[in-house]
Amino acid sequence: MLYALDLIGIALFAITGALAAGQRRMDIFGVLVLATVTAIGGGTIRDLLLQQPKIFWVEDPTYLIVIAMAAIATVLIKPLHLKPRRFLLIADALGLAFFTVLGAAKANAFGEGPIIVIVMGVLTGVAGGIIRDVLSSKVPLIFRSELYATASLLGAITFIITINLLNTESALTLGFLTAAAARLAAIHYKLSLPVFTVNWPDQDDTPDS
Amino acid sequence: MLYALDLIGIALFAITGALAAGQRRMDIFGVLVLATVTAIGGGTIRDLLLQQPKIFWVEDPTYLIVIAMAAIATVLIKPLHLKPRRFLLIADALGLAFFTVLGAAKANAFGEGPIIVIVMGVLTGVAGGIIRDVLSSKVPLIFRSELYATASLLGAITFIITINLLNTESALTLGFLTAAAARLAAIHYKLSLPVFTVNWPDQDDTPDS
Amino acid sequence: MLYALDLIGIALFAITGALAAGQRRMDIFGVLVLATVTAIGGGTIRDLLLQQPKIFWVEDPTYLIVIAMAAIATVLIKPLHLKPRRFLLIADALGLAFFTVLGAAKANAFGEGPIIVIVMGVLTGVAGGIIRDVLSSKVPLIFRSELYATASLLGAITFIITINLLNTESALTLGFLTAAAARLAAIHYKLSLPVFTVNWPDQDDTPDS
Repeated sequence: MLYALDLIGIALFAITGALAAGQRRMDIFGVLVLATVTAIGGGTIRDLLLQQPKIFWVEDPTYLIVIAMAAIATVLIKPLHLKPRRFLLIADALGLAFFTVLGAAKANAFGEGPIIVIVMGVLTGVAGGIIRDVLSSKVPLIFRSELYATASLLGAITFIITINLLNTESALTLGFLTAAAARLAAIHYKLSLPVFTVNWPDQDDTPDS
Repeated sequence: MLYALDLIGIALFAITGALAAGQRRMDIFGVLVLATVTAIGGGTIRDLLLQQPKIFWVEDPTYLIVIAMAAIATVLIKPLHLKPRRFLLIADALGLAFFTVLGAAKANAFGEGPIIVIVMGVLTGVAGGIIRDVLSSKVPLIFRSELYATASLLGAITFIITINLLNTESALTLGFLTAAAARLAAIHYKLSLPVFTVNWPDQDDTPDS
Repeated sequence: MLYALDLIGIALFAITGALAAGQRRMDIFGVLVLATVTAIGGGTIRDLLLQQPKIFWVEDPTYLIVIAMAAIATVLIKPLHLKPRRFLLIADALGLAFFTVLGAAKANAFGEGPIIVIVMGVLTGVAGGIIRDVLSSKVPLIFRSELYATASLLGAITFIITINLLNTESALTLGFLTAAAARLAAIHYKLSLPVFTVNWPDQDDTPDS
């Protein structure tokens, strides 16, 4: 079950990477590179930080084949892209929810405590999208979107509470549903939390802009 | 002593991450993510490159609690932000100096030679700020500020010379003071070294700008 | 032979990092940092992902000395920079070809299968340039240049086919020549593949631009 979820999450992030590549007008191999880096980014950082004996996609190249298929399919069905940005946001939201619970589950299976499980869930969930957006020169979604980090955090917290009360399957399901529902509702209803605002009054900030 | 210094450096970088998040108008969870990534960035890269048995904050979640407290405090004392940019620069300068000597000390304790000790000190010192600035879509301080890399390098060199003549405590203290003094003086007096300038005369550079 | 090739590739990428630093008007220590990060970036990611017992430049600091020499030489011979951007593109193309075959060769020597060998070749080849361009706030070459990822992929595929038919030396040579020829021809003749284009018709995209 974990494996199937992982492949679905990977495919979703590959699609968002391919769409972002299309927005930057890349050729097919540029599309493949951005789709790959987006899809493997979060899990690779998770495995490096948890010092797994082997990175997941180095151990099992099936992931890379799924990524290539998802990216190529995204290019081929181009005529159907009626609302590509909305589609990217939804795929990204579902990928965020999948990777959050999978990152939390892997840290938990590795015997880490609740704080590390939550942080690893959030880092795994948000890393792929951050890498995609930095590489395609956009402000990462997490830093300009409603309830992005919040949705991931809610999913990870739901996971850690549920797994101590029920079982892994319930924890994965409820964590996923919480994160996905929060993020999709935020996209649809434009929900947001109050923002923290700092204005630089200093004169020497001109090089920033 | 190393542990206390590490926590202070972590808190300082968490504050700079929170302020940068405020400048980009993020909500509280976005603030937490950027503060965390900024504060753990340098040390995480150091531990991965030195192939430590466990990343420092995965081993001891106290770091993450300190980061969360520093970030929340930064948001709460907002009315006191009279000169946020100056405060960010000073916190960043002290964090740079702390992490430089701590990175050098960890590489030295791990038995590395002087070149690796110096490079690891500089990488650990500058990485957190680079990550913070790239993620908040700004040109990294290191690439537009006076004596940034230089201050870190001076601190790391002072550390490696002193530790071979005196003891670890003196090396940490003198290395920290050298890096902090150089960077703070550069901020205050706008000191800088001559820059290396390359102009592209080529026609095909238009996509850059 | 692998070692000599590695040093040449490292020096080439260090030169491109130094030139990019010069375009951003950094001082000499900023130049050193950007040259170092560009030159060690690809190989460091490769060694982390393959979980080598020790990162190549931590094991052998000769690499860091070569990088410093290449960066300083780039600054010193500044009067000879007639066409710095063209020079950067050519050095980047050769570095891309060197690192592609070296990344593929290291993954192959580590016993990985053909898919991982190809992906590791491409990741090692393109990572340094991506890091350099992200840190100097430019759109990475790979995402706006002709046949960049394609050249790396062709080189890696040539390597994996040749090494199963002939020997390592032939595979390194033919892989390098294929990647370098494809990329240099693309620069010179402005060759490109058809691009994949996605237009966001959605209204809510304004924050991107």
